[in-house]
Amino acid sequence: MAPSLEPTEPRALYLEGGEVRFQPSGRTVHFSKGEDMLTLARRAHVRLYQTCNGAGTCGKCVVTVNDPVSPLTEEERTALTEEQRADGARLACQVVPLGAVVVTVPETGDLDILAEGLHLNMALRPRVTKEAVEVPPPSLHRPAADLARLQARLGERTILAPHPAMLQSLPLALEQGSGRVTVVRAGGVIVAVEPGDTRDSIYGMAFDIGTTTVVGYLRDLNTGELVEVAASVNPQTAFGADVIARIEHASRTPQGLSELRRAIIQCLNRLIAEACGAAKISPQAVYDLTLAGNTTMLHLALGVPVDSIARAPYAPAVLQALEMPATDLWLKAHPRARVSLLPHVAAYVGADIVADLLSSNLMRRDRMTLLLDFGTNAEIVLGSRKRTVACAAAAGPCFEGGNISCGMRAARGAIYGVRLEDDLLKWDTIGDAAPAGLCGTGLIDLVALLCDHGVIDEAGKLLPPERAPHAPADLRDRVEGEGRQLRFRLAAAEESAVGTALYLTQRDIRELQAAKAAIAAGVRLLCERLGIDPNAISETLMAGAFGNSIRTESGIRLGLLPRGPHTRYRSIGNAAGVGAQMALLSGAARRRAERIAERVEYVELSSEKSFTDVFAEEMYFPPNR
Amino acid sequence: MAPSLEPTEPRALYLEGGEVRFQPSGRTVHFSKGEDMLTLARRAHVRLYQTCNGAGTCGKCVVTVNDPVSPLTEEERTALTEEQRADGARLACQVVPLGAVVVTVPETGDLDILAEGLHLNMALRPRVTKEAVEVPPPSLHRPAADLARLQARLGERTILAPHPAMLQSLPLALEQGSGRVTVVRAGGVIVAVEPGDTRDSIYGMAFDIGTTTVVGYLRDLNTGELVEVAASVNPQTAFGADVIARIEHASRTPQGLSELRRAIIQCLNRLIAEACGAAKISPQAVYDLTLAGNTTMLHLALGVPVDSIARAPYAPAVLQALEMPATDLWLKAHPRARVSLLPHVAAYVGADIVADLLSSNLMRRDRMTLLLDFGTNAEIVLGSRKRTVACAAAAGPCFEGGNISCGMRAARGAIYGVRLEDDLLKWDTIGDAAPAGLCGTGLIDLVALLCDHGVIDEAGKLLPPERAPHAPADLRDRVEGEGRQLRFRLAAAEESAVGTALYLTQRDIRELQAAKAAIAAGVRLLCERLGIDPNAISETLMAGAFGNSIRTESGIRLGLLPRGPHTRYRSIGNAAGVGAQMALLSGAARRRAERIAERVEYVELSSEKSFTDVFAEEMYFPPNR
Repeated sequence: MAPSLEPTEPRALYLEGGEVRFQPSGRTVHFSKGEDMLTLARRAHVRLYQTCNGAGTCGKCVVTVNDPVSPLTEEERTALTEEQRADGARLACQVVPLGAVVVTVPETGDLDILAEGLHLNMALRPRVTKEAVEVPPPSLHRPAADLARLQARLGERTILAPHPAMLQSLPLALEQGSGRVTVVRAGGVIVAVEPGDTRDSIYGMAFDIGTTTVVGYLRDLNTGELVEVAASVNPQTAFGADVIARIEHASRTPQGLSELRRAIIQCLNRLIAEACGAAKISPQAVYDLTLAGNTTMLHLALGVPVDSIARAPYAPAVLQALEMPATDLWLKAHPRARVSLLPHVAAYVGADIVADLLSSNLMRRDRMTLLLDFGTNAEIVLGSRKRTVACAAAAGPCFEGGNISCGMRAARGAIYGVRLEDDLLKWDTIGDAAPAGLCGTGLIDLVALLCDHGVIDEAGKLLPPERAPHAPADLRDRVEGEGRQLRFRLAAAEESAVGTALYLTQRDIRELQAAKAAIAAGVRLLCERLGIDPNAISETLMAGAFGNSIRTESGIRLGLLPRGPHTRYRSIGNAAGVGAQMALLSGAARRRAERIAERVEYVELSSEKSFTDVFAEEMYFPPNR
Repeated sequence: MAPSLEPTEPRALYLEGGEVRFQPSGRTVHFSKGEDMLTLARRAHVRLYQTCNGAGTCGKCVVTVNDPVSPLTEEERTALTEEQRADGARLACQVVPLGAVVVTVPETGDLDILAEGLHLNMALRPRVTKEAVEVPPPSLHRPAADLARLQARLGERTILAPHPAMLQSLPLALEQGSGRVTVVRAGGVIVAVEPGDTRDSIYGMAFDIGTTTVVGYLRDLNTGELVEVAASVNPQTAFGADVIARIEHASRTPQGLSELRRAIIQCLNRLIAEACGAAKISPQAVYDLTLAGNTTMLHLALGVPVDSIARAPYAPAVLQALEMPATDLWLKAHPRARVSLLPHVAAYVGADIVADLLSSNLMRRDRMTLLLDFGTNAEIVLGSRKRTVACAAAAGPCFEGGNISCGMRAARGAIYGVRLEDDLLKWDTIGDAAPAGLCGTGLIDLVALLCDHGVIDEAGKLLPPERAPHAPADLRDRVEGEGRQLRFRLAAAEESAVGTALYLTQRDIRELQAAKAAIAAGVRLLCERLGIDPNAISETLMAGAFGNSIRTESGIRLGLLPRGPHTRYRSIGNAAGVGAQMALLSGAARRRAERIAERVEYVELSSEKSFTDVFAEEMYFPPNR
């Protein structure tokens, strides 16, 4: 039985008495007579992807083996191509070693996700898989039902979840495909049967539902590949710009909740249709969906009341991860598609932050990392592998231009940065257009510049020209008015796109101070909770569009970003969207999201005794160095 | 620790060292320190109904115990009334014996179903149960979500299946009921949450979908009690009177299948609304549904193609039992109601026959029993505890008046029986009305009478008066015509309700002969299959309306019913409806239906070689004795 050995082969691999070695890991196990390779791989802790639990029907556990092994089975003849067989490919669940053999396990099919700021390497393990099977026709002697013959072909262990649509299509599928059908498994359960071999067509879509923007990512579940991206303004903005306004609309207006629900669901369905249209596939080929978003956004998508989110003690209806038929959410994909909603940590630390943490790997790091996600509510997470805490800081709308006299969103004409050039103030606008207003990053840049030159003092006070003697003349000249009406002219009326001059007022500065103070106080309290010095933060990750475009030095200058001597800063872009896609592509990622939501310790700032004091201290800007 | 004993008490009950005796069974088990009564009951094989698996929340496992036992727990204080506690009632999952004790287990809550011809004693174990729980409010310190607080109250082992409707109602339910809510469990999974205590309101509905008639039975799932019955003509009759006509309509007409589906589903929804209206409850209080009916009827209700049922090898899409959300079938009950479809044996031995077998207990009997369910297709089952075989015989429509010259359904004016009174022919009509025609039982009665008096010979030939010399003059006088046109005048034109005379023709007799031959051949072949003599049949059960009204002696006279010397005959009425209700009331009954469908061996008459011969032999009527 022992194979003839080439003298150059290491003898160790071919010991008598039944050793199997798995490559490339090199793990070795002893086998007893009749044990198959799948069983042995499990014993050796070698991971082999398969979906039929050894029934021989899914054809996934392909390995390459040398002799001596058992002959090809009927299942293998069906599952493997001629070419594969010629290459020594076998199904691990079918092949039994008859002596010492080497088994080569294929590359794990790991997936690289390259996204803004994040590079992920993960295994592709979609919830929904397809398998093509040949169902024998019935005989008069044994007129078994279509479903029973399918079940027999798939093996007793397969769970069928028959529903009318599946049963309706089954006879036709068997007829059209002459017995060849493709079964669709979701989480191991057969949910659909399609005529012929449709294995090529299996897609999923992940959504990041932002308060302002909704982005959908269409991915091929066979390859993990990103096929299309579709984005839209969240149509709920018509009912209120921020979360609190939406909650008020949902709670106080009759039909408000269902209006908001319909708006977001229609938006998701439009994005599914758009992405599928661009990819030239049917929305029926989308079998799986994942939603990330803040607690309020996902409650609204479910049509679940949100008033408790805005009311102490801030206990929402549901924080845990949910999975349900997509039709329960009125989503128009395959009629048996599933949808997963990522879990939340708390009312104001939602599934978007969990998705951030999933894609940023913060909780698997050794070094202390801070994650900031800026918006009306700034979410702050601090921690490492050992322990992670989170809070939400009420930053107000100033980062989005709200409550700022010439504030605006980051749209065409928005001043997003300022600088001195030959001691003259210069601005950068979106689209290089004439300035129409000031967006969040421009506001931070401007205030930081004015602090640097002593035009704004540590207390946030805008100073008259005579009290800023070291500032360049251009800056001093721009300070107008007197006393409380003092203001800084950013652009004259004739320069601006709106026909009036653009000013930064004392009140605007106070608004930014309050936002900065809320965030900095949050960071400090989280540090206290973990018992670390803010200087110990080794990396700060900035998520979201705003985090992507803020100029780090200006943020540090104002004390908005921590200024640890060794802190690195990194924008991680739409980390929530990446996390949602990871959850779409892998059950392990979904389970990790659940563990993340459970493990993060939520700190409610409003119930921290020292919060008011720390907040007041942090109203100050750091002194000039 | 040992209790003080009354001298009259049997000492055996109070042995030292930890014996617990369960009454009324008298089973005794030894306990180790800390084991609860539920655990001990399981070990003693004493069945205790409960739904929370020992979490202490369902309050179902009430037993009565004497001392010494552990003190009352918080769970028991919640679950038991003051009165119960005063009576020594405890929750078995909570109470721990501290010495030798006697535990009295309450009556099992078995249910008596009294239905036509059947007396059933079964345990009430509905799939859907309710439990009232008190959910504590959230705190700022621990702002757990509504769902998490509910889950904590129910215990970790409870499976929640959250869906939007449940999540939508949860905050409101908690608010309206001030934390008191009722959870609805289906098969152990929480499917709905209702405000306050709604345990009183929990109903189910079982349907028997006949080709001609649909009957719905509304039952209270708390008590098992029958609350209402609603019945309707199957509206599919508009598309064809019998199964084959329906299959043709479904297969050959565009939209035919969906027309038939819509018709039956609308009918079921109308019956639900009717029964609930009469019972003054909302259809939303109907949480569970069960459907019995022949293979074609249930396929049509699912909208599943039926053409393969009418085409060799007669392999339908599905035979197995199905369970799905009622909304999958468009049924209008509670939005999360479930529906079970009983399993079939074969294309022409459907779930109605399985329900017959369930309620008749045929397969648990020691003696050889024959079950006949007459209709266009007569289903025949023969067997006992050991082995059971079944076949379908194509009887044609003559039992329903079809293909008979003056045939009619069993409606007003139908002659359902004939007899001789003072040597004169007398008839009995439905509603004592003037005769309008002849229904199936009347046909059998008439032909049997004419055979008895030699007016019809063994070969089924109607004889001219001169060849029936021993027949009463009234019978002989009624034979008119000549040769092939010979016919028997049942009623003169002036006697009949239709204005023309009613005749039995030679062709009518041939029709009945063919039906009788098909059935008798089926019975004989089933006897052969089991290797028994037809005389060994000890009981014949007749199911269905026709089986209920046929005069046994006439059936025996014609050889339609077996004439074993010791055979008893019993009509079991709507045994299928009773079986459907059993399946509604008990998971054990549903599982038994599945085992029945698996165990019955189907015999396809058309592939039996001897069928044609036996059929030809059985065309003869038995000779006069």
